[in-house]
Amino acid sequence: MNLDIIGWSPSGAVRFLDQTLLPRQEVHREVHSIDDMIEAIKALRVRGAPLIGISAAMGLAAAAARQAADGGLNVAWFDEAAGRMAQARPTAVNLVWAVNRMRHVAAQAFADATDQAAVARALRLEAQRIWDEDAEMCRAMGDAGAALIPQGATVLTHCNAGALATGGIGTAVAALYTAHEQGKGIKVVSTETRPLRQGARLTAWELSKAGVPVTSIVDSAAASVMARKAIDLVITGADRIAANGDVANKIGTYALAVLANVHDIPFYVAAPRSTFDLSLASGATIPIEERSAAEVDAAPGAAVHNPAFDVTPAEIIAAIVTDRGVVRPPYQESIRRLFD
Amino acid sequence: MNLDIIGWSPSGAVRFLDQTLLPRQEVHREVHSIDDMIEAIKALRVRGAPLIGISAAMGLAAAAARQAADGGLNVAWFDEAAGRMAQARPTAVNLVWAVNRMRHVAAQAFADATDQAAVARALRLEAQRIWDEDAEMCRAMGDAGAALIPQGATVLTHCNAGALATGGIGTAVAALYTAHEQGKGIKVVSTETRPLRQGARLTAWELSKAGVPVTSIVDSAAASVMARKAIDLVITGADRIAANGDVANKIGTYALAVLANVHDIPFYVAAPRSTFDLSLASGATIPIEERSAAEVDAAPGAAVHNPAFDVTPAEIIAAIVTDRGVVRPPYQESIRRLFD
Repeated sequence: MNLDIIGWSPSGAVRFLDQTLLPRQEVHREVHSIDDMIEAIKALRVRGAPLIGISAAMGLAAAAARQAADGGLNVAWFDEAAGRMAQARPTAVNLVWAVNRMRHVAAQAFADATDQAAVARALRLEAQRIWDEDAEMCRAMGDAGAALIPQGATVLTHCNAGALATGGIGTAVAALYTAHEQGKGIKVVSTETRPLRQGARLTAWELSKAGVPVTSIVDSAAASVMARKAIDLVITGADRIAANGDVANKIGTYALAVLANVHDIPFYVAAPRSTFDLSLASGATIPIEERSAAEVDAAPGAAVHNPAFDVTPAEIIAAIVTDRGVVRPPYQESIRRLFD
Repeated sequence: MNLDIIGWSPSGAVRFLDQTLLPRQEVHREVHSIDDMIEAIKALRVRGAPLIGISAAMGLAAAAARQAADGGLNVAWFDEAAGRMAQARPTAVNLVWAVNRMRHVAAQAFADATDQAAVARALRLEAQRIWDEDAEMCRAMGDAGAALIPQGATVLTHCNAGALATGGIGTAVAALYTAHEQGKGIKVVSTETRPLRQGARLTAWELSKAGVPVTSIVDSAAASVMARKAIDLVITGADRIAANGDVANKIGTYALAVLANVHDIPFYVAAPRSTFDLSLASGATIPIEERSAAEVDAAPGAAVHNPAFDVTPAEIIAAIVTDRGVVRPPYQESIRRLFD
């Protein structure tokens, strides 16, 4: 499966599939500048916690290369660019994580390098490494996650934690691709994911391209589908995971976790280690992005509350699938061991 | 408050506000024929269980008057018209209830009347009575429901169970209007209600027109708003209530009821007695309308499951507000007493 979601253009720009236009149009865009990459991240042209990190790193590398060609790649320029890039969106920790890796490599390169082009090469190498590592982590999550999926299972997933959210085959959806390839005959129920409809537009698109049977439902239909015993397990991605296992993910994830628990359906989360933020003791302090009222499109005169994420408490998560295997409660310890 | 939602045109047609165009346009349509009224009901130009019943009755009366003017109002014509009207949509029992009232009056009138015009007059009178009675029932539900709403409460409601769903001030929303008029300083959180967005388009529209503070959220944000203890109670309408208190209502109602229970928030339903179907022992046999895949608008290649309603079991409903006061568990008995 190659959906050509992100890459380098021959000119050194970042070339990506504009996800806001899917599924109707498959349009690729090229960005060379920090501002354009920040716009693409803010507008969700690229989205999904891992892909946001990869895009930020590649965007920094592409802009640095151009800056070097103009003779203007220096510490002050890079610090300002990295600082702005890190703030493009607030919730996904992978963004800060990827920018910090780029900062680390930049510091080293500015100290060591004899010319600006060498610094730019080091940055591109690191961005490529972040991407390659993510693809590898996706494969690992796919293997670990598929092991949780019984033969013939119907799996509900929310938003898009698929190839379109990562540099590889996805996080939660990686488990679905892998189970499908293992011949388990799975079926997927994909929630629409209002307001931006990543489930109906993106998850349904990539799964049906891959030949995995997928049925779209509106978000609020998940409960009655669960009540009919038509769902065997739920698996979603994550935007940030606290040290105690609390998970910030797309708005609606918490509702699905509660409903899964009430209906005795296991609720799983899949995320690479870059999504964990051990600096936070719990999910209570994860910043939740409030997005534009226009996304909800309510009648004039009404206020709008449009949080992009919610927090699911660790107590109702059966297991978390990572690139280093499946962790289970008590999460405080199992998560700490992931980073030993 | 007069939103001019339904009425008679001078020509005797039914004149109604086309709710599919709200909130952007306020367009009124006039229908004279059975086919046009069925189309309006199917397409949700008029919607909401009580208003569907009123519209069906008024549509039968308007078409009968025209038929009488052409000399073609007879038992065969009426039976066929009523039979088709009763099947315009499957879930709301008020439709069948209203058509049956019209059938009863027609049978009497055809037996008694000396001419077709007299039959038509009797039908119009009955349709008007159904409408007037509904407006009166709305007022009664408003009084009974407002008593459940504490001073300063924030109330979550789903879909549209307001003036736009009835011949008066609504069912669930009647309680909100009444509490607001009583100076309780309430706030309303209105869920969008995908796929047809009746909450964001209709409930937000009519509440803000009436000066009631209302905030729109996407359906899947209700859980995290509840977790923040920002909701004091939930109240929704109903499309059909079984003898044991199980409630069929707009898809997503069941999810909200479960989530309210998990968060220790009372979940109420409001409906007039015409919404009760004592012929059904439980909600298990309520027919659930499956609507078009196009409403969900998923990526090509994906299947769509688009149930318009779900069933909330009586066990998680704190009380049902009716036009004859509030009924509480055990519902089997309290509902039976409603009809004594």
